Amino acid sequence: MPGEVNRDATCLFCRIVAGEVPATVVAEDERTLAFLDINPASDGHALVVPKAHAADLGAADPEDVAATARAAQALGARMRERLGADGVNVLTAWGEAAWQTVFHLHWHVIPRYAGDEARDRLRLPWTPSPGDPAVLASVAARLTAP
Amino acid sequence: MPGEVNRDATCLFCRIVAGEVPATVVAEDERTLAFLDINPASDGHALVVPKAHAADLGAADPEDVAATARAAQALGARMRERLGADGVNVLTAWGEAAWQTVFHLHWHVIPRYAGDEARDRLRLPWTPSPGDPAVLASVAARLTAP
Ligand SMILES: [Zn+2]
Ligand SMILES: [Zn+2]
Repeated sequence: MPGEVNRDATCLFCRIVAGEVPATVVAEDERTLAFLDINPASDGHALVVPKAHAADLGAADPEDVAATARAAQALGARMRERLGADGVNVLTAWGEAAWQTVFHLHWHVIPRYAGDEARDRLRLPWTPSPGDPAVLASVAARLTAP
Repeated sequence: MPGEVNRDATCLFCRIVAGEVPATVVAEDERTLAFLDINPASDGHALVVPKAHAADLGAADPEDVAATARAAQALGARMRERLGADGVNVLTAWGEAAWQTVFHLHWHVIPRYAGDEARDRLRLPWTPSPGDPAVLASVAARLTAP
């Protein structure tokens, strides 16, 4: 795949995939690369990216979405085995409004350590509370309209 | 697929897939179902699940991981078109330590509305700050050891 893959010469993650910018690679397969996040939310926090450039989840080839999700699953399993993680969050941010800062699709794979604030700096991103029934009905109507 | 699918009779999401518990379904394909979260973090917050029971990301058939990730991508695109979302977060919680509460794999697909606190109640789950180089090296060594 290297040599044929779609890339953006100005994209940080394409440059990591090409080996032009250093990164701590922790897993690789034909379509995907995983490397450590340099600003980790927990010890072991890594990113899984498709080797082909795609700005975000919306722009990616569905086959790369599938391949990166499977790679995140495998890496999460390895974090549990090798790092002793008690759980794992897998997250992608699509768009600046969703906190995306590097515009090459990436899944955060974040090992979790129960009750260990030194290794695990994640905070609950929302507090579950019941939705307004009128809003639920309205969004469902819009999402399912032909 | 209905009728053949692996299910757990005590699982809330299996019961939703089977139509035994009501839910507001917003998308469906052969392997996946999407329905609104009744405790939404933003207006339109939905869950994508595989129809086959799997307790979490680790337990799921990789084909169901791939299918649910592609379904989340498609639903996110629809949220941008139909709900006017400015961005989308896609997130799964694997294990109680990662805030999982229903033990059937699900991806949260959360539309984001920039600057609109009435519709968007998500909070930044971590503040990026540089990792300790010794910790980065140690986790990489453990993750990549043969
Ligand atoms: Zn790129
Ligand atoms: Zn189930």
